Amino acid sequence: MSQQRHGNTPGNAGAVPAFPDLPEATIARLPEYLRALHNLAEAGSDTISSEGLAAAAGVNSAKLRKDLSHLGSYGTRGVGYDVTLLIDQIEYILGLDQRRAVALVGVGNLGHALAGYDGFASRGFRIVALFDADLEQVGKAINGLTVRHVGELRRAVVEDGITIGVISTPPSAAQGVADDLVAAGVTSILNFAPCVLSVPAGVDVRKVDLAIELQILSFHEHRKASLTALPGGLVGEGGNQEAVGS
Amino acid sequence: MSQQRHGNTPGNAGAVPAFPDLPEATIARLPEYLRALHNLAEAGSDTISSEGLAAAAGVNSAKLRKDLSHLGSYGTRGVGYDVTLLIDQIEYILGLDQRRAVALVGVGNLGHALAGYDGFASRGFRIVALFDADLEQVGKAINGLTVRHVGELRRAVVEDGITIGVISTPPSAAQGVADDLVAAGVTSILNFAPCVLSVPAGVDVRKVDLAIELQILSFHEHRKASLTALPGGLVGEGGNQEAVGS
Repeated sequence: MSQQRHGNTPGNAGAVPAFPDLPEATIARLPEYLRALHNLAEAGSDTISSEGLAAAAGVNSAKLRKDLSHLGSYGTRGVGYDVTLLIDQIEYILGLDQRRAVALVGVGNLGHALAGYDGFASRGFRIVALFDADLEQVGKAINGLTVRHVGELRRAVVEDGITIGVISTPPSAAQGVADDLVAAGVTSILNFAPCVLSVPAGVDVRKVDLAIELQILSFHEHRKASLTALPGGLVGEGGNQEAVGS
Repeated sequence: MSQQRHGNTPGNAGAVPAFPDLPEATIARLPEYLRALHNLAEAGSDTISSEGLAAAAGVNSAKLRKDLSHLGSYGTRGVGYDVTLLIDQIEYILGLDQRRAVALVGVGNLGHALAGYDGFASRGFRIVALFDADLEQVGKAINGLTVRHVGELRRAVVEDGITIGVISTPPSAAQGVADDLVAAGVTSILNFAPCVLSVPAGVDVRKVDLAIELQILSFHEHRKASLTALPGGLVGEGGNQEAVGS
Protein backbone atom coordinates (compact mmCIF):
# COMPACT_ATOMS: atom_id res chain seq x y z
CA MET A 1 0.00 0.00 0.00
CA SER A 2 1.40 3.37 -0.93
CA GLN A 3 2.08 5.71 1.96
CA GLN A 4 2.41 9.36 1.24
CA ARG A 5 3.17 12.23 3.53
CA HIS A 6 -0.02 14.18 3.95
CA GLY A 7 0.24 17.96 4.25
CA ASN A 8 -1.72 19.78 6.94
CA THR A 9 -3.78 21.83 4.55
CA PRO A 10 -5.59 19.72 2.01
CA GLY A 11 -4.84 20.79 -1.56
CA ASN A 12 -2.18 23.33 -2.30
CA ALA A 13 -2.83 25.54 -5.31
CA GLY A 14 -2.02 23.66 -8.48
CA ALA A 15 -1.03 20.44 -6.74
CA VAL A 16 -3.00 17.21 -6.72
CA PRO A 17 -3.98 16.51 -3.08
CA ALA A 18 -2.22 13.42 -1.81
CA PHE A 19 -4.48 10.92 -0.10
CA PRO A 20 -2.85 8.11 1.80
CA ASP A 21 -3.85 4.53 1.26
CA LEU A 22 -4.03 3.23 4.81
CA PRO A 23 -4.02 -0.31 6.20
CA GLU A 24 -7.54 -1.34 7.27
CA ALA A 25 -6.45 -1.77 10.86
CA THR A 26 -5.16 1.80 10.93
CA ILE A 27 -8.40 3.12 9.44
CA ALA A 28 -10.32 1.36 12.19
CA ARG A 29 -8.20 2.93 14.93
CA LEU A 30 -8.44 6.51 13.70
CA PRO A 31 -11.98 6.97 15.05
CA GLU A 32 -10.79 5.75 18.46
CA TYR A 33 -7.98 8.31 18.43
CA LEU A 34 -10.50 10.95 17.43
CA ARG A 35 -12.80 10.14 20.32
CA ALA A 36 -9.92 10.25 22.79
CA LEU A 37 -8.72 13.54 21.31
CA HIS A 38 -12.17 15.12 21.61
CA ASN A 39 -12.28 14.05 25.27
CA LEU A 40 -8.84 15.59 25.81
CA ALA A 41 -9.82 18.81 24.07
CA GLU A 42 -12.93 19.07 26.26
CA ALA A 43 -10.75 18.57 29.31
CA GLY A 44 -8.57 21.47 28.19
CA SER A 45 -5.45 19.70 26.90
CA ASP A 46 -3.56 21.48 24.12
CA THR A 47 -0.99 18.75 23.55
CA ILE A 48 -0.83 15.05 24.28
CA SER A 49 2.06 12.59 24.31
CA SER A 50 1.83 9.48 22.18
CA GLU A 51 1.77 7.40 25.36
CA GLY A 52 -1.09 9.45 26.76
CA LEU A 53 -3.15 9.25 23.60
CA ALA A 54 -2.39 5.55 23.19
CA ALA A 55 -3.55 4.82 26.73
CA ALA A 56 -6.76 6.80 26.19
CA ALA A 57 -7.45 4.93 22.96
CA GLY A 58 -6.54 1.51 24.29
CA VAL A 59 -3.64 0.75 21.94
CA ASN A 60 0.12 0.58 22.40
CA SER A 61 2.03 3.76 21.69
CA ALA A 62 4.31 2.34 19.00
CA LYS A 63 1.27 1.31 16.98
CA LEU A 64 -0.25 4.75 17.45
CA ARG A 65 2.86 6.52 16.25
CA LYS A 66 3.01 4.24 13.24
CA ASP A 67 -0.63 4.91 12.42
CA LEU A 68 -0.27 8.67 12.66
CA SER A 69 2.90 8.68 10.60
CA HIS A 70 0.76 7.44 7.69
CA LEU A 71 -1.03 10.78 7.94
CA GLY A 72 2.20 12.70 7.97
CA SER A 73 1.74 13.43 11.68
CA TYR A 74 4.95 12.94 13.59
CA GLY A 75 4.52 14.84 16.86
CA THR A 76 7.26 16.80 18.59
CA ARG A 77 9.82 14.95 20.67
CA GLY A 78 9.26 15.70 24.34
CA VAL A 79 5.92 17.41 23.70
CA GLY A 80 3.76 15.08 21.67
CA TYR A 81 0.95 16.03 19.33
CA ASP A 82 -1.08 19.20 19.03
CA VAL A 83 -4.59 18.12 19.94
CA THR A 84 -6.54 20.55 17.74
CA LEU A 85 -4.33 19.97 14.72
CA LEU A 86 -4.51 16.22 15.03
CA ILE A 87 -8.29 16.36 15.33
CA ASP A 88 -8.43 18.35 12.09
CA GLN A 89 -6.08 15.96 10.31
CA ILE A 90 -8.00 12.85 11.35
CA GLU A 91 -11.41 14.36 10.65
CA TYR A 92 -10.19 15.35 7.19
CA ILE A 93 -8.82 11.90 6.40
CA LEU A 94 -12.01 10.25 7.61
CA GLY A 95 -14.00 12.62 5.46
CA LEU A 96 -15.97 13.79 8.47
CA ASP A 97 -15.88 17.37 7.28
CA GLN A 98 -18.53 16.30 4.83
CA ARG A 99 -21.98 15.54 6.09
CA ARG A 100 -23.07 12.21 4.66
CA ALA A 101 -26.67 11.28 3.99
CA VAL A 102 -27.58 7.78 5.10
CA ALA A 103 -30.52 5.57 4.17
CA LEU A 104 -31.61 2.81 6.52
CA VAL A 105 -33.54 -0.16 5.19
CA GLY A 106 -35.40 -2.50 7.52
CA VAL A 107 -37.09 -0.97 10.57
CA GLY A 108 -37.62 -4.10 12.65
CA ASN A 109 -36.30 -4.31 16.19
CA LEU A 110 -32.67 -3.59 15.33
CA GLY A 111 -33.35 -1.13 12.51
CA HIS A 112 -35.67 0.86 14.73
CA ALA A 113 -32.94 1.09 17.34
CA LEU A 114 -30.38 2.15 14.76
CA ALA A 115 -32.72 4.80 13.40
CA GLY A 116 -32.69 6.42 16.82
CA TYR A 117 -28.99 5.96 17.55
CA ASP A 118 -27.51 9.27 18.69
CA GLY A 119 -23.97 8.37 17.82
CA PHE A 120 -24.58 8.70 14.10
CA ALA A 121 -25.78 12.28 13.98
CA SER A 122 -23.08 13.52 16.31
CA ARG A 123 -20.45 12.63 13.71
CA GLY A 124 -22.04 14.18 10.67
CA PHE A 125 -23.98 11.11 9.51
CA ARG A 126 -27.57 12.08 8.90
CA ILE A 127 -30.11 9.33 8.48
CA VAL A 128 -32.33 11.03 5.91
CA ALA A 129 -34.62 8.17 4.92
CA LEU A 130 -36.07 4.98 6.34
CA PHE A 131 -37.47 2.13 4.28
CA ASP A 132 -39.23 -1.15 4.79
CA ALA A 133 -40.97 -3.76 2.66
CA ASP A 134 -43.65 -4.35 5.28
CA LEU A 135 -46.75 -2.26 4.62
CA GLU A 136 -47.47 -2.33 8.36
CA GLN A 137 -44.28 -0.32 8.90
CA VAL A 138 -44.67 2.07 5.97
CA GLY A 139 -46.04 5.40 7.12
CA LYS A 140 -44.82 5.07 10.70
CA ALA A 141 -42.92 7.95 12.21
CA ILE A 142 -39.55 7.08 13.74
CA ASN A 143 -37.23 9.74 15.09
CA GLY A 144 -38.81 12.46 12.96
CA LEU A 145 -38.78 10.47 9.71
CA THR A 146 -41.63 8.66 7.97
CA VAL A 147 -40.95 5.11 6.90
CA ARG A 148 -41.25 4.73 3.13
CA HIS A 149 -41.77 1.66 1.02
CA VAL A 150 -38.55 0.07 -0.18
CA GLY A 151 -39.77 0.48 -3.75
CA GLU A 152 -38.97 4.19 -3.39
CA LEU A 153 -35.37 3.51 -2.41
CA ARG A 154 -33.69 4.15 -5.74
CA ARG A 155 -35.46 7.45 -6.29
CA ALA A 156 -34.68 8.66 -2.77
CA VAL A 157 -30.99 7.82 -3.13
CA VAL A 158 -30.74 10.08 -6.14
CA GLU A 159 -32.96 12.86 -4.78
CA ASP A 160 -31.42 12.98 -1.31
CA GLY A 161 -27.82 12.47 -2.31
CA ILE A 162 -27.51 9.37 -0.19
CA THR A 163 -24.04 7.82 -0.19
CA ILE A 164 -24.27 5.30 2.65
CA GLY A 165 -26.85 2.55 3.02
CA VAL A 166 -27.54 0.69 6.26
CA ILE A 167 -29.14 -2.74 5.83
CA SER A 168 -31.01 -4.10 8.84
CA THR A 169 -33.37 -6.44 7.06
CA PRO A 170 -33.70 -10.23 7.43
CA PRO A 171 -30.88 -12.02 5.59
CA SER A 172 -33.20 -13.18 2.80
CA ALA A 173 -33.89 -9.59 1.78
CA ALA A 174 -30.43 -8.12 2.23
CA GLN A 175 -28.90 -8.94 -1.17
CA GLY A 176 -31.85 -7.45 -3.02
CA VAL A 177 -31.59 -4.27 -1.00
CA ALA A 178 -27.85 -4.12 -1.63
CA ASP A 179 -28.48 -4.50 -5.35
CA ASP A 180 -30.97 -1.62 -5.28
CA LEU A 181 -28.60 0.60 -3.31
CA VAL A 182 -25.73 -0.10 -5.67
CA ALA A 183 -27.86 0.39 -8.77
CA ALA A 184 -28.91 3.77 -7.39
CA GLY A 185 -25.29 4.84 -6.90
CA VAL A 186 -24.60 4.10 -3.22
CA THR A 187 -21.00 2.96 -2.78
CA SER A 188 -20.84 2.31 0.98
CA ILE A 189 -22.94 -0.20 2.86
CA LEU A 190 -23.16 -1.05 6.55
CA ASN A 191 -24.65 -4.51 6.75
CA PHE A 192 -26.30 -5.86 9.90
CA ALA A 193 -27.93 -8.82 8.21
CA PRO A 194 -26.25 -12.14 8.98
CA CYS A 195 -25.17 -12.91 5.45
CA VAL A 196 -22.39 -12.14 3.00
CA LEU A 197 -23.28 -9.52 0.39
CA SER A 198 -22.12 -9.65 -3.17
CA VAL A 199 -21.19 -6.21 -4.48
CA PRO A 200 -19.15 -4.89 -7.39
CA ALA A 201 -15.64 -3.52 -7.07
CA GLY A 202 -15.80 0.09 -5.89
CA VAL A 203 -18.49 -0.62 -3.29
CA ASP A 204 -17.32 -0.90 0.31
CA VAL A 205 -19.18 -3.05 2.81
CA ARG A 206 -18.71 -3.12 6.56
CA LYS A 207 -20.43 -5.96 8.32
CA VAL A 208 -21.64 -6.00 11.91
CA ASP A 209 -22.72 -9.44 12.91
CA LEU A 210 -23.69 -9.72 16.54
CA ALA A 211 -23.91 -13.48 16.54
CA ILE A 212 -20.38 -13.71 15.20
CA GLU A 213 -19.16 -11.46 18.00
CA LEU A 214 -20.65 -13.82 20.55
CA GLN A 215 -19.17 -16.83 18.83
CA ILE A 216 -15.74 -15.24 18.97
CA LEU A 217 -16.19 -14.71 22.69
CA SER A 218 -17.37 -18.30 23.00
CA PHE A 219 -14.12 -19.46 21.41
CA HIS A 220 -12.11 -17.58 23.99
CA GLU A 221 -14.27 -18.93 26.81
CA HIS A 222 -13.77 -22.46 25.52
CA ARG A 223 -10.06 -22.00 25.19
CA LYS A 224 -9.73 -20.55 28.68
CA ALA A 225 -11.70 -23.47 30.06
CA SER A 226 -9.47 -25.97 28.27
CA LEU A 227 -6.27 -24.29 29.44
CA THR A 228 -7.30 -24.20 33.07
CA ALA A 229 -8.06 -27.90 32.75
CA LEU A 230 -4.42 -28.72 32.04
CA PRO A 231 -2.71 -31.04 34.55
CA GLY A 232 -0.13 -29.66 36.92
CA GLY A 233 -2.20 -26.58 37.65
CA LEU A 234 -0.84 -24.60 34.73
CA VAL A 235 -2.47 -21.19 34.69
CA GLY A 236 -4.44 -20.12 31.63
CA GLU A 237 -3.23 -17.26 29.49
CA GLY A 238 -4.54 -13.74 29.67
CA GLY A 239 -7.46 -12.58 27.59
CA ASN A 240 -7.41 -9.86 24.99
CA GLN A 241 -9.37 -6.85 23.89
CA GLU A 242 -10.25 -6.65 20.23
CA ALA A 243 -12.02 -3.74 18.71
CA VAL A 244 -13.96 -4.08 15.53
CA GLY A 245 -11.63 -3.80 12.57
CA SER A 246 -8.37 -4.14 14.54
CA MET B 1 0.98 -18.69 18.31
CA SER B 2 1.14 -22.46 18.74
CA GLN B 3 -0.76 -24.50 16.21
CA GLN B 4 -1.60 -28.03 17.08
CA ARG B 5 -3.36 -30.67 15.11
CA HIS B 6 -6.78 -31.13 16.61
CA GLY B 7 -8.28 -34.61 16.68
CA ASN B 8 -11.89 -35.14 15.68
CA THR B 9 -13.01 -36.46 19.03
CA PRO B 10 -12.18 -34.14 21.85
CA GLY B 11 -10.24 -35.84 24.62
CA ASN B 12 -8.85 -39.31 24.19
CA ALA B 13 -8.68 -41.36 27.34
CA GLY B 14 -5.66 -40.36 29.37
CA ALA B 15 -4.52 -37.64 26.96
CA VAL B 16 -4.70 -33.91 27.52
CA PRO B 17 -7.03 -32.46 24.86
CA ALA B 18 -5.11 -30.21 22.51
CA PHE B 19 -6.69 -26.83 21.89
CA PRO B 20 -5.30 -24.71 19.11
CA ASP B 21 -4.39 -21.10 19.66
CA LEU B 22 -5.78 -19.45 16.57
CA PRO B 23 -5.07 -16.08 14.97
CA GLU B 24 -7.88 -13.60 15.75
CA ALA B 25 -8.72 -13.23 12.07
CA THR B 26 -9.20 -16.99 11.77
CA ILE B 27 -11.43 -17.07 14.84
CA ALA B 28 -13.60 -14.37 13.27
CA ARG B 29 -14.01 -16.33 10.04
CA LEU B 30 -15.00 -19.64 11.62
CA PRO B 31 -18.57 -18.48 12.34
CA GLU B 32 -18.92 -17.45 8.69
CA TYR B 33 -17.80 -20.90 7.57
CA LEU B 34 -20.26 -22.41 10.01
CA ARG B 35 -23.16 -20.41 8.65
CA ALA B 36 -22.27 -21.38 5.08
CA LEU B 37 -21.93 -25.03 6.12
CA HIS B 38 -25.35 -25.03 7.80
CA ASN B 39 -26.87 -23.61 4.62
CA LEU B 40 -25.14 -26.31 2.58
CA ALA B 41 -26.30 -29.05 4.94
CA GLU B 42 -29.88 -27.79 4.68
CA ALA B 43 -29.59 -27.84 0.91
CA GLY B 44 -28.52 -31.49 1.09
CA SER B 45 -24.78 -31.27 0.38
CA ASP B 46 -22.64 -33.97 1.98
CA THR B 47 -19.30 -32.60 0.86
CA ILE B 48 -18.04 -29.21 -0.27
CA SER B 49 -14.90 -28.11 -2.07
CA SER B 50 -12.74 -25.45 -0.49
CA GLU B 51 -13.57 -23.16 -3.40
CA GLY B 52 -17.28 -23.70 -2.91
CA LEU B 53 -17.15 -23.08 0.82
CA ALA B 54 -14.88 -20.08 0.35
CA ALA B 55 -17.27 -18.53 -2.15
CA ALA B 56 -20.23 -19.10 0.18
CA ALA B 57 -18.35 -17.50 3.06
CA GLY B 58 -16.97 -14.59 1.07
CA VAL B 59 -13.25 -15.35 1.49
CA ASN B 60 -10.57 -16.65 -0.83
CA SER B 61 -10.04 -20.39 -0.83
CA ALA B 62 -6.34 -20.34 0.13
CA LYS B 63 -7.22 -18.40 3.28
CA LEU B 64 -9.99 -20.86 4.06
CA ARG B 65 -7.73 -23.87 3.69
CA LYS B 66 -5.15 -22.22 5.91
CA ASP B 67 -7.79 -21.46 8.55
CA LEU B 68 -9.14 -24.99 8.58
CA SER B 69 -5.67 -26.51 8.72
CA HIS B 70 -5.31 -24.86 12.16
CA LEU B 71 -8.14 -27.15 13.24
CA GLY B 72 -6.47 -30.19 11.79
CA SER B 73 -9.01 -30.23 8.95
CA TYR B 74 -7.36 -30.85 5.63
CA GLY B 75 -10.12 -32.02 3.29
CA THR B 76 -9.71 -34.68 0.64
CA ARG B 77 -8.09 -33.80 -2.65
CA GLY B 78 -10.69 -33.82 -5.39
CA VAL B 79 -13.58 -34.10 -2.97
CA GLY B 80 -13.25 -31.36 -0.38
CA TYR B 81 -14.58 -31.39 3.13
CA ASP B 82 -17.22 -33.51 4.79
CA VAL B 83 -19.92 -30.98 5.70
CA THR B 84 -21.24 -32.67 8.84
CA LEU B 85 -17.80 -33.39 10.22
CA LEU B 86 -16.59 -29.87 9.60
CA ILE B 87 -19.67 -28.45 11.31
CA ASP B 88 -18.91 -30.58 14.36
CA GLN B 89 -15.26 -29.56 14.39
CA ILE B 90 -16.01 -25.85 14.12
CA GLU B 91 -18.85 -25.93 16.66
CA TYR B 92 -16.55 -27.72 19.08
CA ILE B 93 -13.73 -25.22 18.65
CA LEU B 94 -16.11 -22.31 19.06
CA GLY B 95 -17.48 -23.91 22.19
CA LEU B 96 -20.98 -23.84 20.77
CA ASP B 97 -21.74 -27.27 22.15
CA GLN B 98 -22.07 -25.50 25.49
CA ARG B 99 -25.03 -23.27 26.10
CA ARG B 100 -23.78 -19.96 27.47
CA ALA B 101 -25.81 -17.76 29.77
CA VAL B 102 -25.67 -14.09 28.87
CA ALA B 103 -26.53 -11.01 30.91
CA LEU B 104 -27.44 -7.77 29.14
CA VAL B 105 -27.04 -4.47 30.93
CA GLY B 106 -28.70 -1.33 29.61
CA VAL B 107 -32.16 -1.67 28.05
CA GLY B 108 -32.37 1.63 26.19
CA ASN B 109 -33.08 1.69 22.48
CA LEU B 110 -30.18 -0.50 21.44
CA GLY B 111 -30.24 -2.79 24.47
CA HIS B 112 -33.94 -3.41 24.01
CA ALA B 113 -33.29 -4.41 20.40
CA LEU B 114 -30.44 -6.70 21.41
CA ALA B 115 -32.59 -8.34 24.08
CA GLY B 116 -34.98 -9.41 21.35
CA TYR B 117 -32.36 -10.41 18.78
CA ASP B 118 -33.16 -13.88 17.43
CA GLY B 119 -29.66 -14.58 16.28
CA PHE B 120 -28.36 -15.08 19.80
CA ALA B 121 -30.65 -17.86 20.94
CA SER B 122 -30.28 -19.80 17.70
CA ARG B 123 -26.60 -20.36 18.47
CA GLY B 124 -26.87 -21.47 22.06
CA PHE B 125 -26.51 -18.05 23.66
CA ARG B 126 -29.32 -17.55 26.13
CA ILE B 127 -29.94 -14.08 27.47
CA VAL B 128 -31.00 -15.04 30.99
CA ALA B 129 -31.08 -11.66 32.67
CA LEU B 130 -31.63 -7.99 31.82
CA PHE B 131 -30.49 -5.09 33.96
CA ASP B 132 -30.76 -1.33 34.05
CA ALA B 133 -29.96 1.48 36.46
CA ASP B 134 -33.09 3.41 35.53
CA LEU B 135 -35.95 2.66 37.90
CA GLU B 136 -38.38 3.45 35.08
CA GLN B 137 -37.04 0.43 33.22
CA VAL B 138 -36.79 -1.93 36.19
CA GLY B 139 -39.75 -4.28 36.31
CA LYS B 140 -40.53 -4.04 32.59
CA ALA B 141 -41.01 -7.24 30.67
CA ILE B 142 -38.88 -7.62 27.54
CA ASN B 143 -38.88 -10.81 25.51
CA GLY B 144 -40.08 -12.89 28.45
CA LEU B 145 -37.60 -11.48 30.97
CA THR B 146 -38.16 -8.90 33.71
CA VAL B 147 -35.66 -6.08 33.86
CA ARG B 148 -33.81 -6.07 37.18
CA HIS B 149 -31.91 -3.32 38.88
CA VAL B 150 -28.22 -3.31 38.08
CA GLY B 151 -27.48 -3.61 41.79
CA GLU B 152 -28.55 -7.26 41.50
CA LEU B 153 -26.03 -7.98 38.76
CA ARG B 154 -23.32 -9.64 40.82
CA ARG B 155 -25.72 -11.98 42.56
CA ALA B 156 -27.40 -12.98 39.31
CA VAL B 157 -24.07 -13.73 37.63
CA VAL B 158 -23.27 -16.25 40.33
CA GLU B 159 -26.75 -17.71 40.64
CA ASP B 160 -27.41 -18.03 36.90
CA GLY B 161 -23.94 -19.14 35.85
CA ILE B 162 -23.54 -16.18 33.53
CA THR B 163 -20.28 -16.17 31.58
CA ILE B 164 -20.90 -13.45 28.98
CA GLY B 165 -21.94 -9.88 29.66
CA VAL B 166 -23.36 -7.52 27.04
CA ILE B 167 -22.99 -3.83 27.82
CA SER B 168 -25.39 -1.47 26.06
CA THR B 169 -25.33 1.39 28.52
CA PRO B 170 -24.23 4.99 27.96
CA PRO B 171 -20.44 5.26 27.86
CA SER B 172 -20.30 6.94 31.28
CA ALA B 173 -21.77 3.84 32.92
CA ALA B 174 -19.96 1.15 30.95
CA GLN B 175 -16.73 0.88 32.95
CA GLY B 176 -18.62 0.50 36.22
CA VAL B 177 -20.74 -2.25 34.73
CA ALA B 178 -17.64 -3.96 33.37
CA ASP B 179 -16.06 -3.81 36.82
CA ASP B 180 -19.15 -5.41 38.36
CA LEU B 181 -19.26 -8.14 35.73
CA VAL B 182 -15.58 -8.93 36.20
CA ALA B 183 -15.83 -8.89 39.97
CA ALA B 184 -18.68 -11.38 39.74
CA GLY B 185 -16.63 -13.74 37.59
CA VAL B 186 -17.66 -12.92 34.01
CA THR B 187 -14.70 -13.29 31.66
CA SER B 188 -16.23 -12.32 28.32
CA ILE B 189 -17.78 -8.97 27.48
CA LEU B 190 -19.49 -7.68 24.35
CA ASN B 191 -19.33 -3.91 24.54
CA PHE B 192 -21.65 -1.66 22.55
CA ALA B 193 -20.82 1.49 24.49
CA PRO B 194 -18.62 3.92 22.59
CA CYS B 195 -15.68 3.78 24.96
CA VAL B 196 -12.62 1.66 25.71
CA LEU B 197 -13.02 -0.67 28.68
CA SER B 198 -10.27 -1.43 31.13
CA VAL B 199 -10.29 -5.09 32.15
CA PRO B 200 -7.78 -7.45 33.76
CA ALA B 201 -5.82 -10.07 31.85
CA GLY B 202 -8.00 -13.11 31.34
CA VAL B 203 -11.09 -11.11 30.42
CA ASP B 204 -11.93 -10.89 26.71
CA VAL B 205 -13.75 -7.90 25.30
CA ARG B 206 -15.28 -7.58 21.84
CA LYS B 207 -16.36 -4.11 20.88
CA VAL B 208 -19.07 -3.17 18.44
CA ASP B 209 -19.04 0.52 17.73
CA LEU B 210 -21.52 1.58 15.11
CA ALA B 211 -20.19 5.09 14.79
CA ILE B 212 -16.73 3.72 14.10
CA GLU B 213 -18.14 1.52 11.35
CA LEU B 214 -19.64 4.55 9.67
CA GLN B 215 -16.42 6.49 10.03
CA ILE B 216 -14.52 3.68 8.34
CA LEU B 217 -16.98 3.82 5.47
CA SER B 218 -16.59 7.59 5.39
CA PHE B 219 -12.83 7.15 4.95
CA HIS B 220 -13.40 4.91 1.96
CA GLU B 221 -15.92 7.36 0.49
CA HIS B 222 -13.48 10.21 0.93
CA ARG B 223 -10.66 8.25 -0.64
CA LYS B 224 -12.77 7.22 -3.61
CA ALA B 225 -13.80 10.81 -4.14
CA SER B 226 -10.19 11.97 -4.04
CA LEU B 227 -9.03 9.26 -6.45
CA THR B 228 -11.69 10.03 -9.01
CA ALA B 229 -10.61 13.64 -8.80
CA LEU B 230 -7.13 12.81 -10.13
CA PRO B 231 -6.17 14.51 -13.42
CA GLY B 232 -5.91 12.50 -16.60
CA GLY B 233 -9.10 10.60 -15.84
CA LEU B 234 -7.38 7.93 -13.77
CA VAL B 235 -9.98 5.49 -12.54
CA GLY B 236 -10.36 5.00 -8.81
CA GLU B 237 -9.53 1.68 -7.20
CA GLY B 238 -12.03 -0.97 -6.32
CA GLY B 239 -13.69 -1.07 -2.94
CA ASN B 240 -13.43 -3.85 -0.41
CA GLN B 241 -15.58 -5.92 1.89
CA GLU B 242 -14.47 -6.17 5.49
CA ALA B 243 -16.21 -8.28 8.02
CA VAL B 244 -15.91 -7.55 11.68
CA GLY B 245 -12.76 -9.10 13.06
CA SER B 246 -11.12 -9.85 9.71
